[in-house]
Formats: sequence, C-alpha cells, structure tokens
Amino acid sequence: MPFLPVFFDIEKAHNTIQKYAHRTPVLTSKSINKIVGGELHFKCENFQKVGAFKFRGACNAVFSLSEVDAQKGVATHSSGNHAAALALAAKLRGVAAHIVMPENSPEIKKQAVAGYGANITFCKPTLQARENTLAKVVVKTGATEIHPYNNFNVIAGQGTAAKELIEDTGDLDIILVPVGGGGLLSGTAISTKKLLPNCKVIAAEPAGADDAFQSFQSKKLVPSENPNTIADGLLTSLGERNFEIIMDKVDDIVTVSEENIIAAMRMIWERMKIIIEPSSAVPLAAILEGKVDVKNRKVGIILSGGNLDLERLPF
Amino acid sequence: MPFLPVFFDIEKAHNTIQKYAHRTPVLTSKSINKIVGGELHFKCENFQKVGAFKFRGACNAVFSLSEVDAQKGVATHSSGNHAAALALAAKLRGVAAHIVMPENSPEIKKQAVAGYGANITFCKPTLQARENTLAKVVVKTGATEIHPYNNFNVIAGQGTAAKELIEDTGDLDIILVPVGGGGLLSGTAISTKKLLPNCKVIAAEPAGADDAFQSFQSKKLVPSENPNTIADGLLTSLGERNFEIIMDKVDDIVTVSEENIIAAMRMIWERMKIIIEPSSAVPLAAILEGKVDVKNRKVGIILSGGNLDLERLPF
Repeated sequence: MPFLPVFFDIEKAHNTIQKYAHRTPVLTSKSINKIVGGELHFKCENFQKVGAFKFRGACNAVFSLSEVDAQKGVATHSSGNHAAALALAAKLRGVAAHIVMPENSPEIKKQAVAGYGANITFCKPTLQARENTLAKVVVKTGATEIHPYNNFNVIAGQGTAAKELIEDTGDLDIILVPVGGGGLLSGTAISTKKLLPNCKVIAAEPAGADDAFQSFQSKKLVPSENPNTIADGLLTSLGERNFEIIMDKVDDIVTVSEENIIAAMRMIWERMKIIIEPSSAVPLAAILEGKVDVKNRKVGIILSGGNLDLERLPF
Repeated sequence: MPFLPVFFDIEKAHNTIQKYAHRTPVLTSKSINKIVGGELHFKCENFQKVGAFKFRGACNAVFSLSEVDAQKGVATHSSGNHAAALALAAKLRGVAAHIVMPENSPEIKKQAVAGYGANITFCKPTLQARENTLAKVVVKTGATEIHPYNNFNVIAGQGTAAKELIEDTGDLDIILVPVGGGGLLSGTAISTKKLLPNCKVIAAEPAGADDAFQSFQSKKLVPSENPNTIADGLLTSLGERNFEIIMDKVDDIVTVSEENIIAAMRMIWERMKIIIEPSSAVPLAAILEGKVDVKNRKVGIILSGGNLDLERLPF
C-alpha cells in the first residue's frame, strides 16, 4: 500500500462505507448567512453514526482488512470519538475491538465504548502508558492497530465527508474544517483539490492548541505541547502522513480564540437548533473572528461532531 | 366562513404557506427506537421558521386576509412563539403587526419580535391587561386580531405539519402531539383522520397543566388554573373551536410528569443531536412513562419547536 491516499482511495472508501455510514445532510441558515455576509453550507457530521465523522475513517479501516486479519480484531488507544467509532465498525463486521482507555476517562465514554461490545483495557492516563498497553494488547491478540488519523484508510474514509458535501453543493469557493490530528483535514484536502481545484481549503485551530498552525508556518512538524482548549477533539498533534498531505494541498491554517469558539457554538445551537461539540464550532469562529473572509463567497463547513457533556456547557 | 375547518382548508393552507414555510425534515433515531421498541418518526418543527410550528398557522392567517383587511395590519397578544410567528408573517406580506406583550417578557423574546419589525405595546402581565390593551390597539388601528389557536385559519395552518408528516412516512399507527391551546392538536386530528382513518391521534400534556386532559375526560371545557410546568408552550387553556374538534376526532389525551419531560428532552438532545424545547419532549415523555404503548408500532411525533434559554437548561 502506498504511503499516502489519493482521490481514487476516497472513492473506494465511499463504496466501502456507504452501507454503514449515514449520508449526512447539508444544512444552511439564512440568519447566519446574513450575519457573515456569505453563503455557508454545513455538512452535519454531528448526525453521523456515533455522533462524529470519525466513523467514516474507522469503518473504512475495519472493512478494508483482509478476512484473515479482520478475524484477529482491531485495536487502538483513545478516550474519544475514535474509540466509539472503531468499536461500532468492528461490531458491524463481527470482529473484536480492543480499546485501550485511560482509567480517568469520563464514565459516559467508557459506557459508550462498552455498549458497542468492545474489549476495554484501562491504563494510567499518560501517552507512554497508553502506547505500552496497546503494544501488549496487539502482541497478545494479533489485532491490527488502527491509528485515529495517521492511517492510510482512515484518511481515505474521512475524505468522503468533503466528497459528499461537494456532490451536494456543487461549486464552492472555500472549504473550512477544524484541525486536530489532521485526519479530516488531509482527507478533505484530497477530495477538494480533485473535485474543485480552485476551491481554497482552509483549516481552523484553537489558538490554545496551535501545533498545526505552527507546523504549517515553519514547514516542519511541531508537536502539540500542553494544549488547552474547550475544543477537546483538537488536542492531538498532527500525524506525519496528515502533515505531508496538508503541506501539499492546504491553502491556509488560522487560529481562533476560546471566546469565539463558544460564540460560534452558541450561534449554531440557537440559530440552527442542532447540537455540535466545541470542535465543530472552530471554523465558524474563524469567520466571526475575521480570520477567513467569506463575503459573497460560497463556503462549505464540516461540522465534525456532536458529542459533549450537557451538564458542562460553556454558556 | 364556517366555524370549523375541514381537510380541504388544510390543503388550501398548504398551498398558501408553502412559498414561505419550510417543509421540515422527518428524522428517526435507531437508538431511541431500540429503547422504546417501536418505530418513531419525528417531524422537526424546531427547524421551522421562527423555530416553531406556530409559523404555519400565523402565515396562513395573514395570507388569507383580503387585501383591504391586510393593509390595516394584524394584532395579537402573546409573549411566545406566536408573537414572533405573526410578526414574521406580517413582514413577509408587507403589512403591520401589532403585538401586545407583558412588560415582564424575557428580553430575548422582545428583541426577536422587534427584530421582525413588529409594533410592540407593553402592558401589565395579567390576562385582563393583555386583552384590554389588545382591544384598544385593534380599535385604534383597525387591525385584524389573530388568536394563537382559537382561529379557523390558524388551525388550518397547523394541520399542514401532520399532512407533510404523513406524506413523508406513509401509513402510521399513532400520531402523538403535545397539547396546550389545542391549535396543533386540532389541525393534526383533521389531517390524520382524513388521510389515515385508522391512525390513532393521541395528545400528551404535562400533569402540571392538565386542562385538556380534564376537559377531554369530563367532556366540558375546563380552564387552565395555576398551571406549572417546564413546558412553557403548554400553559394555555384549550380554545373552544379546538375543543370541539378534539372531542370529535382525538382518541386519547394522557398526562406526563416533569421528570419524564426532562428525561425525554435530554434523550432527544443526546441521541438525535437536535435542540428541542421542553414542550416538544412531552410526546416522547408519554412513551417513556408507559402512557402510550408503541411496541412494534409505527408512530409519528411532531416536535413543536426549539426555542429556549440555553442558560436555564434543566440538566
């Protein structure tokens, strides 16, 4: 398998996952358009299975395995949406999912992953402990590790969201997505530059977790250090494969304040009556903060997910 | 004009409003279906203009006026969704809306109504003051009063939601709606008994505001006295026209606890990732409370709206 996916791999991924993943709707809001002066098209991955785009990549990765490999199961370490996505994808294929979770993960996330029938191994809440524990699980079970973003088939799967968005909206001037590990961004860039070569691909990132911005500016991979943001899906460092695609195909990466993330999240909740997690609000925050000019432009935005604790809202 | 609308009037209303109102989507949730053991189809009026089904009735009432009457404007007293709905409908027809609001209405509601360009007259927060002030406004302006539910054209407009729902789902065993003044319930009953004569029409009402339940049981109109519920759209007493239609066509009215309203609201927020107001959760609460048996049934539910104060959530 080559190191980096191309659009053909995204088309293949789309065929693979379409029996399992939702084709999520694209919504618009007249009142938000009036506020920003442009035409925004929101791809609602908050309505995706497990409540996040992550299901696309995990599903493609699980269903791309050979039968022999699949029977040994899949494994990852994650406390977030990827864990639930991989657990559900494995369940749909009828194979085992081995998930390493930090022992301090929120109870609700432990339950969600357990609810999909995954085998959970708890570990100390450090990256070292997570990686060591995962390595042991993989040796013991023979399972295939599925990295949440630095993975060929995961990137190809995430690229299907932008493909669907463009199929539904037609021409776009800009596509805006949040960036954490870079799985969604790299997949989006591959789809967009193939289908709409003149469309700008811009990523938005919290200023408190700006490793992708720094990496993009300095042209070398800068790890995420002590990130701090309400957008808890965007704390991770860019993956190597993701970084390479991003440097090749992404037009810009901008940063936004926590204040604008919360304002954008609230605007979408109030005006569109849909629930998005803070990470999903980062692209609109970039528009509100004046970092991306959408005046009279037609813009696609991927709302990455809708999972959050309703008892800890920022407003 | 006859006293009560029939299905023909709902068809006419549908033609009248379709240029202005959204045809809202019908959503389903596999996880909620699994919990309740039936197949629920949610008609999402939280995505309607002004965030509630009320726009259908107000729009039909405004656009059904003769040109001479329309030029004198429309008027109502309301602090809720009907005020915003009437203001927007009047704006779309290019005529004046005179809204009498209690002076203690939430600032956000005053702003919403003012934002649609309505003329607002404030009054003391009593029904007497509201009615007296409205009477003066009507005398002074010659505007036509549009009652929020006890009105022929409003009922016909509200009936279009169930018509669309049935067109989209086909056969249904039960249609479940919340009941406050009875505008939505009476319109829904007319559409349903015409299109699906064997489908049961059941209304759900908070136990703390159970005037419709009492009226239905005793077969005479019992006014709402000191109602107390989080479902603030359902505090009003049934209208006379609404009651007559309800006694003729509705199969049952059941009551639910506040606890189950909150549980149902949270279930829809968490599992469907959409924002609904407490009133919208009352039908699902009736299912969770065991008041309506949906086992192996195909059920339509109208989610009435999505307007609420995000800073005062019950969870």
